[in-house]
Amino acid sequence: MATTKKIYDQFLERTHELFTLQSIGAVLHWDKETFMPKKGIETRASQLQLLSGLSHDYLTNPKLGELIEQLSEPQHAKNLSDTEQVNVREMKRAYERSIKIPKKLSQEISHINTMATEAWIEARKNDRFQDVAPWLEKIVALNRQYAKCLGFKNDYDALLDGYEPQATTAELKPLFEKLRKELVPLVPWAMEKCEKFKPLRFATKFPIEKQTTLEKILLEKIGFDLDCGRLDISTHPFCTSFSGDVRITTRYQEENFCKSLLSVFHEGGHGLYEQGFLPQHKNTPMAEAASFGVHESQSRFWENIIGRSRPFWKYFTPIAKKYFPEVLAHVTDDQLFHYVNQVRPGFIRVDADEVTYNLHILLRFEIEQELINNGLKIADLPEIWNSKMKAYLGITPPNNKLGVLQDIHWYSGGIGYFATYTLGNLYSAQWYQQMHKELPDVEKQIAQGEFLNILGWLRKNIHSKGQYYPAAKLCETVTKEPLNEKHFLNYLKNKYETFN
Amino acid sequence: MATTKKIYDQFLERTHELFTLQSIGAVLHWDKETFMPKKGIETRASQLQLLSGLSHDYLTNPKLGELIEQLSEPQHAKNLSDTEQVNVREMKRAYERSIKIPKKLSQEISHINTMATEAWIEARKNDRFQDVAPWLEKIVALNRQYAKCLGFKNDYDALLDGYEPQATTAELKPLFEKLRKELVPLVPWAMEKCEKFKPLRFATKFPIEKQTTLEKILLEKIGFDLDCGRLDISTHPFCTSFSGDVRITTRYQEENFCKSLLSVFHEGGHGLYEQGFLPQHKNTPMAEAASFGVHESQSRFWENIIGRSRPFWKYFTPIAKKYFPEVLAHVTDDQLFHYVNQVRPGFIRVDADEVTYNLHILLRFEIEQELINNGLKIADLPEIWNSKMKAYLGITPPNNKLGVLQDIHWYSGGIGYFATYTLGNLYSAQWYQQMHKELPDVEKQIAQGEFLNILGWLRKNIHSKGQYYPAAKLCETVTKEPLNEKHFLNYLKNKYETFN
Repeated sequence: MATTKKIYDQFLERTHELFTLQSIGAVLHWDKETFMPKKGIETRASQLQLLSGLSHDYLTNPKLGELIEQLSEPQHAKNLSDTEQVNVREMKRAYERSIKIPKKLSQEISHINTMATEAWIEARKNDRFQDVAPWLEKIVALNRQYAKCLGFKNDYDALLDGYEPQATTAELKPLFEKLRKELVPLVPWAMEKCEKFKPLRFATKFPIEKQTTLEKILLEKIGFDLDCGRLDISTHPFCTSFSGDVRITTRYQEENFCKSLLSVFHEGGHGLYEQGFLPQHKNTPMAEAASFGVHESQSRFWENIIGRSRPFWKYFTPIAKKYFPEVLAHVTDDQLFHYVNQVRPGFIRVDADEVTYNLHILLRFEIEQELINNGLKIADLPEIWNSKMKAYLGITPPNNKLGVLQDIHWYSGGIGYFATYTLGNLYSAQWYQQMHKELPDVEKQIAQGEFLNILGWLRKNIHSKGQYYPAAKLCETVTKEPLNEKHFLNYLKNKYETFN
Repeated sequence: MATTKKIYDQFLERTHELFTLQSIGAVLHWDKETFMPKKGIETRASQLQLLSGLSHDYLTNPKLGELIEQLSEPQHAKNLSDTEQVNVREMKRAYERSIKIPKKLSQEISHINTMATEAWIEARKNDRFQDVAPWLEKIVALNRQYAKCLGFKNDYDALLDGYEPQATTAELKPLFEKLRKELVPLVPWAMEKCEKFKPLRFATKFPIEKQTTLEKILLEKIGFDLDCGRLDISTHPFCTSFSGDVRITTRYQEENFCKSLLSVFHEGGHGLYEQGFLPQHKNTPMAEAASFGVHESQSRFWENIIGRSRPFWKYFTPIAKKYFPEVLAHVTDDQLFHYVNQVRPGFIRVDADEVTYNLHILLRFEIEQELINNGLKIADLPEIWNSKMKAYLGITPPNNKLGVLQDIHWYSGGIGYFATYTLGNLYSAQWYQQMHKELPDVEKQIAQGEFLNILGWLRKNIHSKGQYYPAAKLCETVTKEPLNEKHFLNYLKNKYETFN
């Protein structure tokens, strides 16, 4: 009989190959969004399709299944280290999800998602929801079919589980409802707090080249290694990683240096997570994020909890003044702090402040369940969208472009994803309150531009863990309690309380 | 029995997949040389290794061999169009070369090439040939073994054939010897012609940003489509293509705008070839260069025959003056023409002028045959190198860094490649004399900045042909005679004759 080591080595070789193939796809995606000339798209689509087929073949290879099976048996499992067991567990999870999906369905989904995305771009441009509605109909039907194959008790949970392993609607629903009940009245309260401050207007522009220089300084300051990473420009900012070679992007407005800076903070947060996996776990699940929600907790932590904090602007304003001496000459750190924390309900999620942001998400989370579990009609979507916007944010989108057509997710097949944004916000606040206990002078450190203890805390408690724990268990292990919306709400209340 | 169409369709699907896989590798190589952060190399090496293994598996798949076999049988071959037959012929060629090489040998070659390249970088830095000599020994032995597997009459021809299909030493040797005998005395003659002109010195610098702008204008002017291509910076300029998405690079000197400009002309020439294959042949041999020599003929044509011509500088000097008004204020087109055509024997091939360049190549071509066919000892390499330099160029390298250590080719496993550089030069001159017959006012067109008829001629006669003809046959078809060194020699003599 083969020894555990031999079986594990074979398993590891296949795992490495699968991860390497996927990282090749990531390079192609990165190039597509940053440097690819526009007529390169046709070839790129064929390359990505070929790779995704190959990945599927690698992942569903019966030989891999056999190795996983063997390693899961007690006589071998007991010989594996903890992290080796995690790798087997997570590959098993991925393998079992994949083999349940017929190749034909998977190809149909991929095809429809691409076609529908194209239709959405046009429909949004022309504010014609009816043009993309038939595609969305098909997408919802395929997602239901996909969920049925996976065989969860609740269809929506099958989709959610693809992004947030082991999360269930049964657990998230009450959590999110408590959050919503508190957030809705918080909006007018925080708006009132903000009203006391005269809105800041910048006299001249911020040259893009200088913004980039400043951002790279900031990235290095918070511990992002530009020797194994890059900062570039793309239409929509993102972060991607090829096993440690971590690429982030931003976009620029000449009128406002804060937008891009906070976006770099956000993507840099994702990037620090990717750079923080342990090298010995390269190309295995142990060098992967616990969940999309935990990944988002890292970006929101650096963007909001650090980047929108008062101590950060105390530290950073003098530095920014050096780069933009004229335009920031008479601006104070307090003014910049208030500026990046303005609360105002708006139609567009990606522009939302910290108080209103999660209401955008909760609305989508609720609608998604109706779509998948309760057969909500596509034709009724704009109306339910607008009525929820009115109820939660007090505003009604004047058209679908500013409403149901705004996000790409549903139209590119991503149903079950939105909840992870709110989970990210909640986790980030909960990490911060725990960090506070362990590093009591954390705010002082931020005000002095010292971020390495903060990064060290995240590295130790979150980054280095990879997929060791599922997200919920990670939260309990690190913070000694389950995810609790109170921490995020307290964080918001404390912040706006000081707006006096 | 399956119809020809069915078999060809299956063949085509596999061909497309193989080409697509290879184009993915090309994207990874491009990123490696342009934007990859330095610590990304380890992952990149694994990605490239995986892809090259996959390509090998695709290419040597017995099912592909079977399809090729069937399509080569008369009853199917007769149903194929001319271009379909070319695709079968060329895939057969590639398939048969690949299956003759044991996978173990191919992996050993790849491994040694990578290791030896690293050793060469160090050895060159320290001017210690002895440090890399054992690696070169191994490389030559592996190349001999590789050649033996391919089973050519002459071992060296097996290597040559990998770059210049169907070329043989028996044909090239007399051609190159005639060339050498004429070139050697041409060097002092051309040097004397050049002496009449005062060397040009630029007063100030050429900002890199402006050089790039000017180069992009030039690229568009000669017909390079920047919507399906890019221009970037890399240590060594190169051109690569992902089925029509064509990326070229250059490097800059602030002191001299001509260097980068001519390098862009060179890589742009390669790029125009890649953009000129017919779209319906995408991902098949019909959308591949006839040979490395023909590819090089395109780059040398644009770099030298156009870019170093008197009419080009007549046209281009006023444009360059607009971009660099101060530094070029008192410079004439004649001065720039002479400047880019200075003849001076030097140690470094890549810096060589048009007259001495091929002598560098012939030296290497002769040594390569001695290494592969006649067992020349590695230890004797520096001496034979230096004695040939003395004989052909009248100078002796003071060290190996400026001699046998200068080029990467042998140390990265590329033996049999150098000849294609000289073939490129010869072809380019032969194309030009034929073009002259068909477009008698071609020089006037260049002087007026009209390049589209020239590109049209290349598109019609060379680019659109892909691998329809082997290189030698292409030459005969287009110019009505076999490759003849006279055209190149006449071109040089005519050019320097005018230096009066």
